[in-house]
Amino acid sequence: MPQPELERLLAEIHEQPDVVQRLLDRQVGAVRDAASVFRQRQPAAIVLVARGSSDNAAVYGRYLFEVCNRQLTSLAAPSGLTLYGRGPRLDQTVVIGVSQSGQGEDVVAYVREARRQGAATIAIVNDETSPLAEAAERVLGCLAGPELSIPATKTVTSQMTLLGMLSAVLDDPNAGATRLKGLPAAMRGALELRTAASALARQLASTSLGSVIGRGFGFPPALEIALKLKETSYTRAEPFSAADFLHGPVAVVEPNYSALLIDVGGRSSQAALELAAAISQRGGRPGFLRAGDVSPLPDDDELPNVSLNAPVDEPFAPIVALVLGQLFAVELALAMGLDPARPRGLHKVTSTR
Amino acid sequence: MPQPELERLLAEIHEQPDVVQRLLDRQVGAVRDAASVFRQRQPAAIVLVARGSSDNAAVYGRYLFEVCNRQLTSLAAPSGLTLYGRGPRLDQTVVIGVSQSGQGEDVVAYVREARRQGAATIAIVNDETSPLAEAAERVLGCLAGPELSIPATKTVTSQMTLLGMLSAVLDDPNAGATRLKGLPAAMRGALELRTAASALARQLASTSLGSVIGRGFGFPPALEIALKLKETSYTRAEPFSAADFLHGPVAVVEPNYSALLIDVGGRSSQAALELAAAISQRGGRPGFLRAGDVSPLPDDDELPNVSLNAPVDEPFAPIVALVLGQLFAVELALAMGLDPARPRGLHKVTSTR
Repeated sequence: MPQPELERLLAEIHEQPDVVQRLLDRQVGAVRDAASVFRQRQPAAIVLVARGSSDNAAVYGRYLFEVCNRQLTSLAAPSGLTLYGRGPRLDQTVVIGVSQSGQGEDVVAYVREARRQGAATIAIVNDETSPLAEAAERVLGCLAGPELSIPATKTVTSQMTLLGMLSAVLDDPNAGATRLKGLPAAMRGALELRTAASALARQLASTSLGSVIGRGFGFPPALEIALKLKETSYTRAEPFSAADFLHGPVAVVEPNYSALLIDVGGRSSQAALELAAAISQRGGRPGFLRAGDVSPLPDDDELPNVSLNAPVDEPFAPIVALVLGQLFAVELALAMGLDPARPRGLHKVTSTR
Repeated sequence: MPQPELERLLAEIHEQPDVVQRLLDRQVGAVRDAASVFRQRQPAAIVLVARGSSDNAAVYGRYLFEVCNRQLTSLAAPSGLTLYGRGPRLDQTVVIGVSQSGQGEDVVAYVREARRQGAATIAIVNDETSPLAEAAERVLGCLAGPELSIPATKTVTSQMTLLGMLSAVLDDPNAGATRLKGLPAAMRGALELRTAASALARQLASTSLGSVIGRGFGFPPALEIALKLKETSYTRAEPFSAADFLHGPVAVVEPNYSALLIDVGGRSSQAALELAAAISQRGGRPGFLRAGDVSPLPDDDELPNVSLNAPVDEPFAPIVALVLGQLFAVELALAMGLDPARPRGLHKVTSTR
């Protein structure tokens, strides 16, 4: 039986290397222009405002800006403004709204209010004719083309890529986006690992998948992969940073409990291995998604994993790891007999009052 | 059979009105002194740094400072500094470390680095002789006395109360903490509702409790209640803001799925009712914890709830709602035949490299 929604979701997942290549080819100028705002303003803080998958991209942007650019970065709680009518003073900030549709009312309201107060405003948005694009002074278009599947995929990696490009240009204006140039090939490499993702999914499908955990740059893709798992297979895996997981939630680990650990190389690798040990010690089962400059796992046969060694620095490897996570989410749903492209009761645009 | 750990946990929960009264009686001066730093510095942003339950108190502080004081507030990701050795520039900020023990290495390291950079630093901490208290310029002691139970209770509400007092003094230096004066009586009222909490727990114990959801000021207690449920009954209920829940995770709702909705009066009430409708519509089961200026529920008999009407404004009602959540967590564990005071594999101080 044909499954047109599933075919479409897989097609959108497979478009991602081309979308990222397009951004690297065509958006460096717009990114440089956005970066010039930072040099003019010397903002006291960057504020990222987003919802859903775009908010996970925003969390990624926060790690980039704080670690690679030493810019204090806050993730906005727009309900202060939209629910109570009182948000923070934003005149010394750069506010970046991140959205696929550019329609989310609270994100648009926040960016509009920030601009009214005198903040520099940037929209990272796929629909460049949307209210969010209208609200912001500068627009970085995702150039991802229409995304028709309900689970967002290519729009998320395109948002992450634009944030990565912006961070790279802020760090070194001359180098531009060269540090990201290995991304499309690495993402193609990730897409070739569907069989391995399927094997991992079948291994974990018989367990109770309770969490998706990452440390440092491994945390933002953990957030987004956990959301994909909810949308595609109703798996209630909760995302955690490694530090927070060990601060209480580790109590829930028991035999049959499994956790998906995200390793993006560099400093995140050691943390993933330590978590795996802590989970195994309590009788739980760790599985790994690994992408970037990752070393072979000890006892490779024993620890279920999908691993892609690719020449992508740790700050940009989350974009590759997310591709593995998308494949894993699709395959887990299929292993459970579900249609990953047709989430119960979800529509593409969600508005929040 | 006596259960000394459970008795101790309940004793600590019952101490909370006295701890809060003590803070209102004795810490206004220290809070005023801390507030004076804000007037001298005019910080570009407040940065809160914490882990675990203290981080949930910090999220509460963020809503207070942004909504009531219009101060941009960021929740620190300390791993930028501790894992990668590069955190954001903090010299124009006030950095507030929040901790029970004051031992958490990453929180201490972040506050120390902030002070080195020239930030104003404040510790909100129960152990005033701890490394965190040493690291910060100013200390607001929680005066909660030793907390021996593993699930943190009185230290969390004391941290929240100090944050509430600081926000109130920043908003109106003359009024001091008078807006919080109804808290101890309201918390005593909450403690009288253990039977109702037990009834709600028994109603939900037969379902799969999947989420704890709040909107606006209802969100921070949702975070902390979800953590208490993990620690005491291994329930994998995930916390959500209402807006984020409707942006994807609502797909997991099915018959037998229940959600605990947090209503702290004011603007949070309508959102809780709308969520209940969305969850019921999908066959799921909503239950309510409600504290503050809350109206009677429509069809009171139909919607399982614990409700406390108390003269506490919405910004401070989360402290009262959390007491209801603590009782609910204890009762849910008991209803499931578990000992809520002895979480598997947890110790009191968690260190994070």
